[in-house]
Amino acid sequence: MTRLTRLLSPDELEAALRAIGRERYHNLHPFHHLLHGGKLSLGQVQAWALNRYCYQAAIPRKDAALISKIHDRELRRVWAQRIIDHDGREQEEGGIERWLVLTDGLGLPRDYVISREGALPATVFAVEAYVRFVAEQPPVVAVSSCLTELFAPAIHKERIVGMLENYDFIEDRVLAYFRRRLDQAPRDADFALDYVKRHALTIAEQQGVIDALLFKCNVLWAQLDALYAAYVAPGMVPPGAFRPEDWA
Amino acid sequence: MTRLTRLLSPDELEAALRAIGRERYHNLHPFHHLLHGGKLSLGQVQAWALNRYCYQAAIPRKDAALISKIHDRELRRVWAQRIIDHDGREQEEGGIERWLVLTDGLGLPRDYVISREGALPATVFAVEAYVRFVAEQPPVVAVSSCLTELFAPAIHKERIVGMLENYDFIEDRVLAYFRRRLDQAPRDADFALDYVKRHALTIAEQQGVIDALLFKCNVLWAQLDALYAAYVAPGMVPPGAFRPEDWA
Repeated sequence: MTRLTRLLSPDELEAALRAIGRERYHNLHPFHHLLHGGKLSLGQVQAWALNRYCYQAAIPRKDAALISKIHDRELRRVWAQRIIDHDGREQEEGGIERWLVLTDGLGLPRDYVISREGALPATVFAVEAYVRFVAEQPPVVAVSSCLTELFAPAIHKERIVGMLENYDFIEDRVLAYFRRRLDQAPRDADFALDYVKRHALTIAEQQGVIDALLFKCNVLWAQLDALYAAYVAPGMVPPGAFRPEDWA
Repeated sequence: MTRLTRLLSPDELEAALRAIGRERYHNLHPFHHLLHGGKLSLGQVQAWALNRYCYQAAIPRKDAALISKIHDRELRRVWAQRIIDHDGREQEEGGIERWLVLTDGLGLPRDYVISREGALPATVFAVEAYVRFVAEQPPVVAVSSCLTELFAPAIHKERIVGMLENYDFIEDRVLAYFRRRLDQAPRDADFALDYVKRHALTIAEQQGVIDALLFKCNVLWAQLDALYAAYVAPGMVPPGAFRPEDWA
């Protein structure tokens, strides 16, 4: 754990946050190496998409929880774009719909995906911990927990290339979610990073934003740990969760 | 998932709840077979005790969350005993202290255990999901989530015998926690079961109490899944979590 003993400059704070990404972001998790390297079966990719849906579906609730405690109308207006990006609006289908295009393409029934019935309990616990964290922490700390988006474009690029190349059951059009995030994530991350650098002005606040990013890395890592344990090794699917063989 | 289509009698409801225990309680998890059968190393037992501490430590907060929404003084008085059982009071050391006697006996520093710093993030996510569930659900549903205690005495007996017999690093006195729960758990569980049978009077309420017990079984199961994955197989300890070799 990074323990601060003095106030950091804004640029030092940014460096500390980027270092966390290099060491703890889930692009380092063995499950992603398998996923992007074409080492997973259709059933394993289904399990990933089905569980990751829970995370996607929680994002607008997380962002709404943050907006619910911001008194600055300008900041609320900026942040509301994130809800629209995920839920859609008029001509914009939104990221959750694009995720469902992916699960459709993998042959999973929409009702089943949306019900979260087959999701690993560990997935839901981790995702909801994130929603609660944002709801309960002060704004600058809550904003910092979104900064994993700083590290997302690299993994999305790797995923698009790796999945198209390595799986015959993946078509280009089902990867629209990731392609769209290549533009959205940097815009959001740059804004959030700037906000955190300008508003974390005490040692306690800076410690809070550092811990928040570590927490969020744990939320992402724990989801892949659970997928790995259930569907790769030792392959123990908990009672009630999705079993690829039941959907083959 | 058990989906009710008609109202159950109180005894039918009890039977449905007991059936969930037979199928989903964590005594069935492979990690417990290893633990009780003497198949784990000291480091693996340490990891279990350290993570399970997070669960123990959350119980009084969970019970306080329940009390915080009960308007019936009689019920609050009964339920307050649970907080005392765990936190202690005057001459009574309490269950959390008894758990720390166990982690002491396993050679773990108290500060480290209490800090939860080495706990698996998945443990904390699961445990806090339980606290939130009890805080957010209606009283009869929240009470039902405690009914895993119906199934606890059998596992505690098995654990006392199995651990004493199979591990030379386990002394009788460090198992005081489990011995004490042999009396406390049935008293609590009988009271809660009676409450649920008398207050779940619609199909929706009965469905709620059934789902609550399934949820709680998932909370317990997910904790063992995470321990198994990190410390048994594949043995991938997430970044920052307890590593036995660092404490040997």
